[in-house]
Amino acid sequence: MSTNYADDSLMLHTDLYQINMAESYWADGIHERKAVFDLYFRKLPFGNGYAIYAGLERALAYLNDFRFTESDIGYLRDELGYREDFLAYLADLRFTGDVYSMAEGEVVFGNEPLIRVEAPLIQAQLIETALLNIINYQTLIATKASRIKQVVKGDVVMEFGSRRAQELDAAIWGARASVIGGVEATSNVRAGKLFGIPVAGTHAHSMVQAYESEYEAFHAYARRHKDCVFLVDTYDTLKIGVPTAIRVAKELGDKINFLGIRLDSGDIAYLSKESRRMLDEAGFPEAKIIVSNDLDEYTIMNLHLQGAKVDQWGIGTKLITAYDQPALGAVYKLVSVENSRGEMEDRIKISSSAEKVTTPGVKKVYRIIDRENGKSEGDYITLADEEPEKEQRLKLFHPVHTFISKFVTNFDAVNLHTQVVRDGELVYELPTLDEIVEFSHARLDLFWDEYKRSLNPEEYPVDLSQKCWDNKMRNIHEVRERIHDFELHEKEAE
Amino acid sequence: MSTNYADDSLMLHTDLYQINMAESYWADGIHERKAVFDLYFRKLPFGNGYAIYAGLERALAYLNDFRFTESDIGYLRDELGYREDFLAYLADLRFTGDVYSMAEGEVVFGNEPLIRVEAPLIQAQLIETALLNIINYQTLIATKASRIKQVVKGDVVMEFGSRRAQELDAAIWGARASVIGGVEATSNVRAGKLFGIPVAGTHAHSMVQAYESEYEAFHAYARRHKDCVFLVDTYDTLKIGVPTAIRVAKELGDKINFLGIRLDSGDIAYLSKESRRMLDEAGFPEAKIIVSNDLDEYTIMNLHLQGAKVDQWGIGTKLITAYDQPALGAVYKLVSVENSRGEMEDRIKISSSAEKVTTPGVKKVYRIIDRENGKSEGDYITLADEEPEKEQRLKLFHPVHTFISKFVTNFDAVNLHTQVVRDGELVYELPTLDEIVEFSHARLDLFWDEYKRSLNPEEYPVDLSQKCWDNKMRNIHEVRERIHDFELHEKEAE
Repeated sequence: MSTNYADDSLMLHTDLYQINMAESYWADGIHERKAVFDLYFRKLPFGNGYAIYAGLERALAYLNDFRFTESDIGYLRDELGYREDFLAYLADLRFTGDVYSMAEGEVVFGNEPLIRVEAPLIQAQLIETALLNIINYQTLIATKASRIKQVVKGDVVMEFGSRRAQELDAAIWGARASVIGGVEATSNVRAGKLFGIPVAGTHAHSMVQAYESEYEAFHAYARRHKDCVFLVDTYDTLKIGVPTAIRVAKELGDKINFLGIRLDSGDIAYLSKESRRMLDEAGFPEAKIIVSNDLDEYTIMNLHLQGAKVDQWGIGTKLITAYDQPALGAVYKLVSVENSRGEMEDRIKISSSAEKVTTPGVKKVYRIIDRENGKSEGDYITLADEEPEKEQRLKLFHPVHTFISKFVTNFDAVNLHTQVVRDGELVYELPTLDEIVEFSHARLDLFWDEYKRSLNPEEYPVDLSQKCWDNKMRNIHEVRERIHDFELHEKEAE
Repeated sequence: MSTNYADDSLMLHTDLYQINMAESYWADGIHERKAVFDLYFRKLPFGNGYAIYAGLERALAYLNDFRFTESDIGYLRDELGYREDFLAYLADLRFTGDVYSMAEGEVVFGNEPLIRVEAPLIQAQLIETALLNIINYQTLIATKASRIKQVVKGDVVMEFGSRRAQELDAAIWGARASVIGGVEATSNVRAGKLFGIPVAGTHAHSMVQAYESEYEAFHAYARRHKDCVFLVDTYDTLKIGVPTAIRVAKELGDKINFLGIRLDSGDIAYLSKESRRMLDEAGFPEAKIIVSNDLDEYTIMNLHLQGAKVDQWGIGTKLITAYDQPALGAVYKLVSVENSRGEMEDRIKISSSAEKVTTPGVKKVYRIIDRENGKSEGDYITLADEEPEKEQRLKLFHPVHTFISKFVTNFDAVNLHTQVVRDGELVYELPTLDEIVEFSHARLDLFWDEYKRSLNPEEYPVDLSQKCWDNKMRNIHEVRERIHDFELHEKEAE
């Protein structure tokens, strides 16, 4: 580290402007006014039909540690010149707000609040950057993993990307997010240690090189490890790699558990078919073929089309970095704030891009489930005082093309938000990772396959209630009026 | 965390196969044989003509902490079933090797060793994953930042990407790497605290919303902060945002330091030109226009072409994730290992893709600098016993198209590797970040502009010495012979 400040806190893991705004709120005495922020993304990543929400556990750990340390305060004072009165306030600041969230592993969609924070304005503002940093990445990777799982048709998928991950945290939290998305194992041992994820891996090219030949290396591996997967492409896959794996497997017989071979380069379609043939002919029809060479859902689909004989998939770079879209654009927007009279007032952000106009108000998200077939008809965003679970009939209409609408009856309306923090205290029993995985699988079953296919999925409806829509329109109108008044005033002043 | 193991070590931040190989090396008693590994990437990212090396400081900190903790050993024993004899060995293991590296901030190219590790085989193997994880990401981001700096023609660039970074480490180490690549500031306060990087930022849309109007919000900001940049696009940039910024700046006069405005959405080309005109007409020709809306080197070039009036650039997602190529493919390959007679033997990895065939042997990297014009002619990779600095005349030839060659005379041959670790101890005085930045700027000056342009740069020569080339050919030949012998043997066995 280049400076003398201890890395003992994440409180400064935020954008500078949050602290500057916090200072203004505090100096003006509006810092304790209640504010409501929604955290959501607008557009599903990868052209996928859904996303898998991940990152909540890490986000809650961050909130639990909300406390400026001495080194934080020292840095703000000595290097950035913040004044003592404000620093004294920050030093005593704790998180005292309420947080509502989707459950980790939930199937989620664009424009629905994944997290709703209701907290004193200053606190809600300070946590924005870290929450987005965590939720954006983990949700992105869980979604990518789920997308890959959709194309392997039940084959085992392992996350192998640590060396290409974007720094250390991404390697381990990306491994965890991959598991939430359905992946069975990771190569990262630290991720296994911290999260209880199964870890996988046998040996690399360097071991074959260290022993000079496959024959020596495979025997060496087998002397100490019962379960053997031999990597066969160090020098020449079909001429020497696979034949040597077969020879060693035959020589050692029951002394080892010959699980199979791994291919890490070359024409996987051709090599896997030839390897399969050689293994079968040698009497090893149960031996698995594991591949791991820059794979993603597209190369996997293509390998299937070519009749590749693959049993397990090791996915590295393309998964851990979400290579074809390495960022989810989740945002965190103020939707309501207390005014000087102690009343909550809605807030909106206007934009020339229609999809960037925010939806004001304190809102809930319901999943509307058809009681007959058990499938989800759409998600339905309401204002806080609505109770769609008590309605007999709901009108769902498209939030952009409003003339597209349908009525639903005989449904269950399931509130997707759970309160996870109350008055700054965790009030949510964190599920185990196994429970999250199981929950996520069960939630995916609520959706028709048309929403889950990798290419050109159907668009799942995420609709606003009539009341929520009307409220949005009223807010837009009010802003327009204000701009109009301002313009008139400017003209008069000229 | 889902398990009870403390996150007190990075020793398990590795792929499982490294530990399995380590166990085999140890069980076979070859674990202390000296091994030499090269860390390098093959292909420059983004179609750029060069890369900026970053990550060394973090990598050295990792090596310095090389020690399995009790929780590491406990996990390996209780969850993964490693045996006590091996675990007892691991518990006492320390890094005792030598490490040679480029200096952080160096201008580097494909296929040249950025790091050379000479260490007992087991140690060199165990550190592979973490080294790659660190160097890959930080070098990628420093390179992306440098690329962006090449197109802004001296304008200030700020790193604003924390909320979209791939988890927390990427936000802070990516900010540091951006600075190594030439960026002037970051919005991430923790990065400022840890690395002494200048931090930047004023306020967000949420502040304008919290106060309901720009007029209130700008005044509120100005009451507590002398330096003011007002964000003008919350409701309508030209109708209300810029006019209000001007009005507040006029009202407050010398009471504030009105630095300028920030645009974060909409048609930046048009809005920046209109804003510039309005600011100039209002008597604020010195006010800066800062933009920050999903920018990268391509949008910046395009904005320049359209005559956009931009003074400073805030770059978020596209920089911190290296959006258009979010992974650098650096690898770590065994090039030499001690045999049973205590002699070093070269090692090669063969592949059907020519560029994936490794270059065996202990190697050095020289930069060949023309004494007349001070410019770099090419990089020159030699075997360890060569001394090109003592030669009068060198033949540089293309490592793929070998018929392309040139002779150089009157040159300085500068060894780019420095020993940073000796017998496991840091023997390198870590430069400050400012020194790294200065060094990097100076090194870039060694290169003609043709290598530095963003689109279709000239290919900079990275050549092998004749001796290094001959050695590689000999190694390829020997492997081919061995494969041939194996095939003959297989046929005879049938």
